[in-house]
Amino acid sequence: MLSVEEARERILARFTPLAAEVVPLPDALGRVLAEDAVARERLPLFANSAMDGYAVRSADAGAASAEQPVRLRLAGEVPAGSVYPGTVGAGEAIRILTGAPLPTGTDAVLQQELTHTGEGWVELLAPAPAGNNVRAAGEDVAAGALLAPLGTELGPAEIALLAACGVHPVRVGRRPRVAILSTGDELAPLGETPKPGQIRESNGPYLVAAVRRAGGEPLRLGIARDREDELREKLAAARGADLILTSGGVSVGDYDLVKQILDEQGTIEFWRVRMRPGKPLAFGTLGDTPLLGLPGNPVSAAVTFELFGRPAIRRMLGAARVERPRVEVVLEGADIARAERRQFVRARLESRGGTLVALTTGAQDSHIITSLRGATALLVIPEGAGLVRSGEHVSALLLNDALPWGGE
Amino acid sequence: MLSVEEARERILARFTPLAAEVVPLPDALGRVLAEDAVARERLPLFANSAMDGYAVRSADAGAASAEQPVRLRLAGEVPAGSVYPGTVGAGEAIRILTGAPLPTGTDAVLQQELTHTGEGWVELLAPAPAGNNVRAAGEDVAAGALLAPLGTELGPAEIALLAACGVHPVRVGRRPRVAILSTGDELAPLGETPKPGQIRESNGPYLVAAVRRAGGEPLRLGIARDREDELREKLAAARGADLILTSGGVSVGDYDLVKQILDEQGTIEFWRVRMRPGKPLAFGTLGDTPLLGLPGNPVSAAVTFELFGRPAIRRMLGAARVERPRVEVVLEGADIARAERRQFVRARLESRGGTLVALTTGAQDSHIITSLRGATALLVIPEGAGLVRSGEHVSALLLNDALPWGGE
Repeated sequence: MLSVEEARERILARFTPLAAEVVPLPDALGRVLAEDAVARERLPLFANSAMDGYAVRSADAGAASAEQPVRLRLAGEVPAGSVYPGTVGAGEAIRILTGAPLPTGTDAVLQQELTHTGEGWVELLAPAPAGNNVRAAGEDVAAGALLAPLGTELGPAEIALLAACGVHPVRVGRRPRVAILSTGDELAPLGETPKPGQIRESNGPYLVAAVRRAGGEPLRLGIARDREDELREKLAAARGADLILTSGGVSVGDYDLVKQILDEQGTIEFWRVRMRPGKPLAFGTLGDTPLLGLPGNPVSAAVTFELFGRPAIRRMLGAARVERPRVEVVLEGADIARAERRQFVRARLESRGGTLVALTTGAQDSHIITSLRGATALLVIPEGAGLVRSGEHVSALLLNDALPWGGE
Repeated sequence: MLSVEEARERILARFTPLAAEVVPLPDALGRVLAEDAVARERLPLFANSAMDGYAVRSADAGAASAEQPVRLRLAGEVPAGSVYPGTVGAGEAIRILTGAPLPTGTDAVLQQELTHTGEGWVELLAPAPAGNNVRAAGEDVAAGALLAPLGTELGPAEIALLAACGVHPVRVGRRPRVAILSTGDELAPLGETPKPGQIRESNGPYLVAAVRRAGGEPLRLGIARDREDELREKLAAARGADLILTSGGVSVGDYDLVKQILDEQGTIEFWRVRMRPGKPLAFGTLGDTPLLGLPGNPVSAAVTFELFGRPAIRRMLGAARVERPRVEVVLEGADIARAERRQFVRARLESRGGTLVALTTGAQDSHIITSLRGATALLVIPEGAGLVRSGEHVSALLLNDALPWGGE
């Protein structure tokens, strides 16, 4: 049997980032930079006012106070979006609005709350030392600075920063197309009533959603009955995909049909991975397309997708980080028995006064789907004997779904 | 000045869930249930085998062992997806595959590793007590059980569970259409070189991404110069939107144009909210459409969107929970000075041996966009005096973006 690490290493070795494409920045949410994003110019572009008030020469303001105001001649104004055309001389002030460029000759702004104004003059009621209420040019970003390295996933904050620094459009990795095929005579398609002995198919809908969330584009191939012609036909529809995910039929000896097709048209290896849930796994190629064969059990399919499928998709997207974040947490509630195989235990995280606590979400058998619901982490229980007891520290993979946290 | 709570309460009072629509389950990722999801039938639908092996009557297996095997007549087989047609009698066994229905008359399965077989017979090398390797009908979900209540956001796990229990298609709230308009002569549109005194517009791209991530559909209205005709024309394009977001021009006295239009065609209130960043905020209606006027500063726009815009979108989506998760964390690194206004400090969270630690992401002035980058939380610093010191506990809103964690 392979270890989880060996299996993941062998799988990831087969994947590289896909070709880059250029997209408008506002549409790059969730995409991954295919090159370093570098500032075209400094930010702020020019020294500007942090307040509505008056741009002055700090030497003029001197030790102004409410008792001893300094009166300056009001020589003009500069709204945001404009540049004051002249040079401001000694004894002069310019009305300035937030964000407007500091006029040449001035070096400080006094906010309007600390001034009095009249016809053609303004009185300063406080000093305005050099740099007062001034946002210096380049204070946030220097021209040419690295905003985000190749491999960064773009969220709203990165998009704001790239927009502010002129990075648009943006080169990102193409989204991988992931074909999804469920196999087995026992599967009733979504929306159909199961015949006697059948169960409702759930791996297809799960994988469509999970592939989307991982950043891939799902390509739904439906369900293949256990017949060679049907399997051949469905797999033919995967042409053009970057990855084929199948579920079901990976147990020992049951994969003869797939094996036969892949022996003719590609390659296949069957692995037993030292993990629970999800022991059986197949990996190979159909033509040139990598194929990952997940177990049929819904929980096993979900966990093996997380551990092997999602990293492959992230690698193709070009993400610098293909793994889920892993953090240390404190087990609470039921103890967990170690086993010969590494276990991935569905759990929910909470923060208790700054401490990360994990509670399992219920029975962990691989056919219990309810304990996937609400799971925000997989606890990684190393191989071994004895119990991991409540109160002990364990490592957790964060599933980072819509609601990753219980409330406080 | 309003408190953050007062402002949020007044805003949220204006929003209710939008009409529901019916969508195919696999396309419901990120959507919110508009009714309770209830299991159509139990799960598993029928008692089935957890192993490849032999279905037997436990009484027949008795105290079988490798030394004293029990030989049974092999009376048939049942693959997954089929039902064994007869009733199994005393002294008989049925070959069974994982997931196949337990044949009538049997009550246990012995896995094939604990058997020997020959022509027409199987020998049991271990006992098979009643229920051995049997997944009971309804063990996971009872018929009619609540799978997920109204207001639940659907992630891949919920989609798997609903699929397995026959909930398809699914009634979810319609996505809100959110019109986004940036205002100001100083803004250079994406892709254009700023003219002297101009800055690159970043709030539009930010809000497009943030609205999408919140579950809304952005409708881009572009940039309106500070001219009444242009503003009127751009706002007319918001017809049909469920919410209008503007940014810029909310500072005292600068909003005359918008005010004039909204006084004619709707209502507007200008608020000063006791918070930093983001003090100025406008809220009103254009015709019947709510309008939220965010400040122009990129960081202020982002933080006020988080605190007021996103909850409004979540409410319209029908989400039971409209706020970001809030957790207690331990401040690390620089102390933070309390202020008269509540502060929302950009920070990055890490887990250190089970303890959640927050580090600020840099300078917190409202024009510093780089400290939005990599921020995974907003630390909530209550109004007051003195310092929140490194090592003290603070409350954090989790931004839950693509990479919410520093590694360990």
